[in-house]
Amino acid sequence: MSTATFTVTGMTCGHCVSSVQEEVSEVPGVRDVRVELETGLLTVSAEGEVDAAAVRAAVAEAGYQVSA
Amino acid sequence: MSTATFTVTGMTCGHCVSSVQEEVSEVPGVRDVRVELETGLLTVSAEGEVDAAAVRAAVAEAGYQVSA
Repeated sequence: MSTATFTVTGMTCGHCVSSVQEEVSEVPGVRDVRVELETGLLTVSAEGEVDAAAVRAAVAEAGYQVSA
Repeated sequence: MSTATFTVTGMTCGHCVSSVQEEVSEVPGVRDVRVELETGLLTVSAEGEVDAAAVRAAVAEAGYQVSA
């Protein structure tokens, strides 16, 4: 297991949080996803390494961005 | 058919708009619902009179308020 954190920008409400949560949860290997609306903090735990590129793509799919 | 307008407060994104749209569409007699994110303008058309109390309750159910 490994854990990585990201900062997501553009989320304004609980629906946004749910969208990010859903998309990132579908990334292969991901076991746990936490999203904090106020700070944009996204914490992802996965079997093996967290695939950062896949997480970024999932966040984009939900309609938001990971800040660099 | 009649049409009534309301101002909804608290919507921050397209998901909020969808929630309001969905809930208000389920009010008996309602035929058309338009929601504008920027202004909070909610326009409801219904068979017969628009039931304003039911519309307010539906907006509250979605998690928002109709301003007085």
